Amino acid sequence: MAVIPDAGPAAWLDELRRRCAEHVHGFVTERVREHFTGRAAGTPASTALPEFVAGGKFLRPLFAYTGWCCGKPDDEAALRSAAALELLHCFALAQDDVMDGSERRRGRPALHVRFARWHEAESLGGSAERFGESAAILAGDLFLVWSEQLLRSSGLPAGILARGWPIYDHLRSELAVGQLGDLVNEARALPAWGDVLDVVRRKSGNYTVRRPLEFGAALAGCDEQVVHALGTYGGLVGEAFQFRDDLLGAFGDPAVTGKPVGDDLRERKATTVVVLAAELADRGQRAELAGLLDLDVVDTAAVERWQRLITATGARDQLEKLIDERVHHALEVTDLADLPHQPADALTTLALRCTERVR
Amino acid sequence: MAVIPDAGPAAWLDELRRRCAEHVHGFVTERVREHFTGRAAGTPASTALPEFVAGGKFLRPLFAYTGWCCGKPDDEAALRSAAALELLHCFALAQDDVMDGSERRRGRPALHVRFARWHEAESLGGSAERFGESAAILAGDLFLVWSEQLLRSSGLPAGILARGWPIYDHLRSELAVGQLGDLVNEARALPAWGDVLDVVRRKSGNYTVRRPLEFGAALAGCDEQVVHALGTYGGLVGEAFQFRDDLLGAFGDPAVTGKPVGDDLRERKATTVVVLAAELADRGQRAELAGLLDLDVVDTAAVERWQRLITATGARDQLEKLIDERVHHALEVTDLADLPHQPADALTTLALRCTERVR
Repeated sequence: MAVIPDAGPAAWLDELRRRCAEHVHGFVTERVREHFTGRAAGTPASTALPEFVAGGKFLRPLFAYTGWCCGKPDDEAALRSAAALELLHCFALAQDDVMDGSERRRGRPALHVRFARWHEAESLGGSAERFGESAAILAGDLFLVWSEQLLRSSGLPAGILARGWPIYDHLRSELAVGQLGDLVNEARALPAWGDVLDVVRRKSGNYTVRRPLEFGAALAGCDEQVVHALGTYGGLVGEAFQFRDDLLGAFGDPAVTGKPVGDDLRERKATTVVVLAAELADRGQRAELAGLLDLDVVDTAAVERWQRLITATGARDQLEKLIDERVHHALEVTDLADLPHQPADALTTLALRCTERVR
Repeated sequence: MAVIPDAGPAAWLDELRRRCAEHVHGFVTERVREHFTGRAAGTPASTALPEFVAGGKFLRPLFAYTGWCCGKPDDEAALRSAAALELLHCFALAQDDVMDGSERRRGRPALHVRFARWHEAESLGGSAERFGESAAILAGDLFLVWSEQLLRSSGLPAGILARGWPIYDHLRSELAVGQLGDLVNEARALPAWGDVLDVVRRKSGNYTVRRPLEFGAALAGCDEQVVHALGTYGGLVGEAFQFRDDLLGAFGDPAVTGKPVGDDLRERKATTVVVLAAELADRGQRAELAGLLDLDVVDTAAVERWQRLITATGARDQLEKLIDERVHHALEVTDLADLPHQPADALTTLALRCTERVR
């Protein structure tokens, strides 16, 4: 174990992230070697897939492993189990980017774009775009399969894994159903605040923070009081995380987000920022908003009009306030739960890391 | 157990299929009730998903359960495990239909078409087609997740399941990688016969017959000789199955296939029929073939020209011969393996059912 027990929470989390990245990169490299033979071997999958899974922030594994550490000491098999959640996240990213038509991910071309470019470079017949989308969907399917396989073969005894399966199963279905809810919301002119919050809870709140924490705590056999505190923290920080994500999607610096400025606005996503702006808008602002929603193409000038309008309604300030309140409340809850100091400190660090403006 | 031990193989298989359909329908209905709340509940998923999973031929579960019966007596938990393969198949169908742009499945609109129509009927914003495709991809994801969940919760003890996981895992990855290989083949003007056969082995041969049989036999703890015989049978019948499928895709009666006549030709699929025709074509036929491959739209007249050309090259007769040879050889292998009479009879019936002209 390379972890220094007395390291500060940031160093502890960075070291865990490094080990998680090693686990998923190694596992996916093995799977790619096993399966990408024959016709599929020539595609960029063999290099793109291992690279893709190791390139993230590993928030979900870090939350899961923090949950584990609330009940049990450092354990490499438990960390591998936690790392399985990163592959689940990669599944979601690969497929969501196709569905949302997102061209970039983590400052690089999205997976479907990489596959499409390969198709073009090889001068294959048919639509390169269509091929890229299908290949990225299949890459996502493989990540979904491999996540479960990594978890099952993590090295944790079956009896311990049995405590985690119900949450893992729930999380997987909730993620896909949440994405469907998101598509329904996007498809409507503008959903109500309550509908957006419902999807936020399922897709991000639960999936990014709450379920991973509960999953780790369940594996570790934590008592009910701890699980309850982690669940409350997870719900609050998860929502705050999504609010920040939506603010970054509307106002964020491309250097930070790895995406074009105002990407969510260009894609006409019905995010919390946009829906809250609609709820807070006065009559004149509402008319201007309707005009923006009707645009066929959202260019840079339109993005800037969107941004000014959202700010003018007060939605931006209001979301900042909601973020602060949620983080504050979450930290109060975990302070009272009498957790071991290392995971307790990590929860504070992670809550801030998830919701900070320059994330 | 409703199975009559002395029933003929067709009655035995029909009864197994009925029980498998009950298992998957019941399981998916429970999952839908659990997860489709909130925004997603209004979509057609709640009714369409249970209906979809119960509507197939259950070939893969029947092969798996026949494999089981080579080593163990009738067992409902084993049948549930076998039924999990049907959900895996539903995953593949839902997503393949999107990737291939197939409008119909089992004589009805494909899942993505059903979701798209709902989107239109609800007058939602954005592209109905795009929404339908994304929703069907997500439905496929759920089937993939639920397949594994049904298997894990089938009621078979963990020690018995442990014998099946390696094959199940291999099958899942092989299926997705095979589909990617298929897309690469379709994208090329015309792949070589060897490349098409490679994909046929992975996608259909292995996935439809061989791996299910090996999976069931592994769960039952069959000895190596039985597993070997089933694997050989599976490879041969699987290929024959795909050859028949490709013949039906080019020449089949819509009343039998549930799809428009010549659907594979319209979709320009590089199936074994088309590739073999190209290999067997003389110079004049090759020029005509090149002309057909260059068409922007394959209309009914073009389908008829395709059909005449394929027949004229001798590819149709040649494939019929390959099917007969493979089935004949497969039945020889299982005859020699000294299997219990019920699964042995079922293997004969299934080999014919998989490859008969009116399937």
